[in-house]
Amino acid sequence: MNETSIIARHFQSHTQRADVLLGIGDDAAILKAEENLVMSLDSLVVERHFRMDDTPADIGYKALASNLSDIAAMGATPCWAMLSLSLPPEIDEAWIAEFMQGFNALAKAWDVLLIGGDLVRGPLVISIQITGKTNKPPLLRSGAQPGDRILMTGDIGAAGLAWHRDALLSGLDASLRDACRERLLHPQPRIAEGLLIADFAHAAIDISDGIFLDLKRVLDASKVGAELKLDQVALNPAIAEIPLKDDWLLPFMAGDDYELLFTLDSSQFVPLTEAFAKAGIKTPLTQVGTITAPTDLQCFYHGKNVALPEVFGFDHFGQQIK
Amino acid sequence: MNETSIIARHFQSHTQRADVLLGIGDDAAILKAEENLVMSLDSLVVERHFRMDDTPADIGYKALASNLSDIAAMGATPCWAMLSLSLPPEIDEAWIAEFMQGFNALAKAWDVLLIGGDLVRGPLVISIQITGKTNKPPLLRSGAQPGDRILMTGDIGAAGLAWHRDALLSGLDASLRDACRERLLHPQPRIAEGLLIADFAHAAIDISDGIFLDLKRVLDASKVGAELKLDQVALNPAIAEIPLKDDWLLPFMAGDDYELLFTLDSSQFVPLTEAFAKAGIKTPLTQVGTITAPTDLQCFYHGKNVALPEVFGFDHFGQQIK
Repeated sequence: MNETSIIARHFQSHTQRADVLLGIGDDAAILKAEENLVMSLDSLVVERHFRMDDTPADIGYKALASNLSDIAAMGATPCWAMLSLSLPPEIDEAWIAEFMQGFNALAKAWDVLLIGGDLVRGPLVISIQITGKTNKPPLLRSGAQPGDRILMTGDIGAAGLAWHRDALLSGLDASLRDACRERLLHPQPRIAEGLLIADFAHAAIDISDGIFLDLKRVLDASKVGAELKLDQVALNPAIAEIPLKDDWLLPFMAGDDYELLFTLDSSQFVPLTEAFAKAGIKTPLTQVGTITAPTDLQCFYHGKNVALPEVFGFDHFGQQIK
Repeated sequence: MNETSIIARHFQSHTQRADVLLGIGDDAAILKAEENLVMSLDSLVVERHFRMDDTPADIGYKALASNLSDIAAMGATPCWAMLSLSLPPEIDEAWIAEFMQGFNALAKAWDVLLIGGDLVRGPLVISIQITGKTNKPPLLRSGAQPGDRILMTGDIGAAGLAWHRDALLSGLDASLRDACRERLLHPQPRIAEGLLIADFAHAAIDISDGIFLDLKRVLDASKVGAELKLDQVALNPAIAEIPLKDDWLLPFMAGDDYELLFTLDSSQFVPLTEAFAKAGIKTPLTQVGTITAPTDLQCFYHGKNVALPEVFGFDHFGQQIK
């Protein structure tokens, strides 16, 4: 039993509606309105998405950031947020106030308005629904085409390091260590980048569950394969300083990065980088592989084929990485 | 600390958007689109909204029904649902399948399409977001005017009886007993009624937390008061058969009824009943009181003023009725 198969088996629609342009299966759904609406809903739980010793403000910020990242991965502009909090009795009003400080700081930065939701007493679960708008064709997981270049924004691995191997970080230079923890606690949703990428790319996803698993989701949705060059994946500088040894695939599997992974025709790479430069966006873009017609995911490290581990990403309903 | 005050203090918007016609504070929010969109998000937890010995199908049905009721109370047509399930390890795929059977049966009946959401492993919490549409002015809590009649659909008390006093039900005639349990497990969202009421009423709310508390929310939002005639409130026939004694206010406080409470100018009562008859809707409409300019809620029982109990409804963050 894993998340994808449960969705495929039990969450298929039993009715049809002409106003649903995209339902279950991508980072968010798309509805017809003046502009197209893009909606996502996610729940966050302790020890999966955050830890109880994170500050409430950090939890509030990250809960919203991880949801906004889904809208960014659609190439849409987030507009409205709904928030439902199930809170155990030991969580007091001060906690809620701090949580909302973190939430609101990010919401304000992106002009996202909280429009509703609810509060219940229950186990700690944070549910956030985001609606975005777009007036261009949104970026789906399903548009990748053989021959496409695979690109990523920014770099990955820092958040996973801070989550899974925090003890190792103490050996790092303070600025590098703090940067890793900052990436875990305060990811930057790539909204501005997604809006530009939407003009050039064929497919996109946010790297929330590790690049292997998220790329695989694009491949499956697009019915294509890929060659991924692990030595070209942009890893956070901290990774080179940490002796991961047998764990060297951790940065590819740990997730929580919230960078965008996308594919485009190779002719579009230069226009895209020019559009980034023109918009003043300095986020690095890195080519990490190529889409292939054969539907398998092949990984290479300096030209050498690397076997993927059996469990290669974060699936709540599959086995978990440790 | 109670739910309303927490929302007032911590969930105020920090940005403004022209496309948000109604944000926090009513049964759902309203966004500008081709038609106006009406959105709600609610989380359901065990022992508050359902019990673990309810069948998964019953839980799935009721989770959706209670959310659709919010859209009904806005006088809108529900269109799209999003579902986020946080599920503990002991919940298996069979449970999910049955849950979705109950959910889908109701979704199909109202042409509501599930368009997204997610699954996480965590404590059991069910979050549902609904978006509805309307092309007329929606029914707010804030529109009640002095002199308005207060009306309700159907009858209340049966669900509360089944939840809080299930042991007492065994003394009842089987059909009456089963009807109470059916009302608790399978409430009918008053969607068709809400759509008609929207043409005539000034204000509306669904009676989910007890008629005292939900009426009070209308009064507070409208800055008016009311005289509520308890002897005229439509109670489920089972109430008369149960010796509630000192508990006689339970049906007014227990909630879970999902009937609509609304106010209208007295001139609109006959046109409304005619519209119900024309549409073939047989749901009873009962006048239960009058809106007043003084902002207090006064209750009468056969003409005698009845003091409201200190805790008079279900507020997750206030004291709970027992």
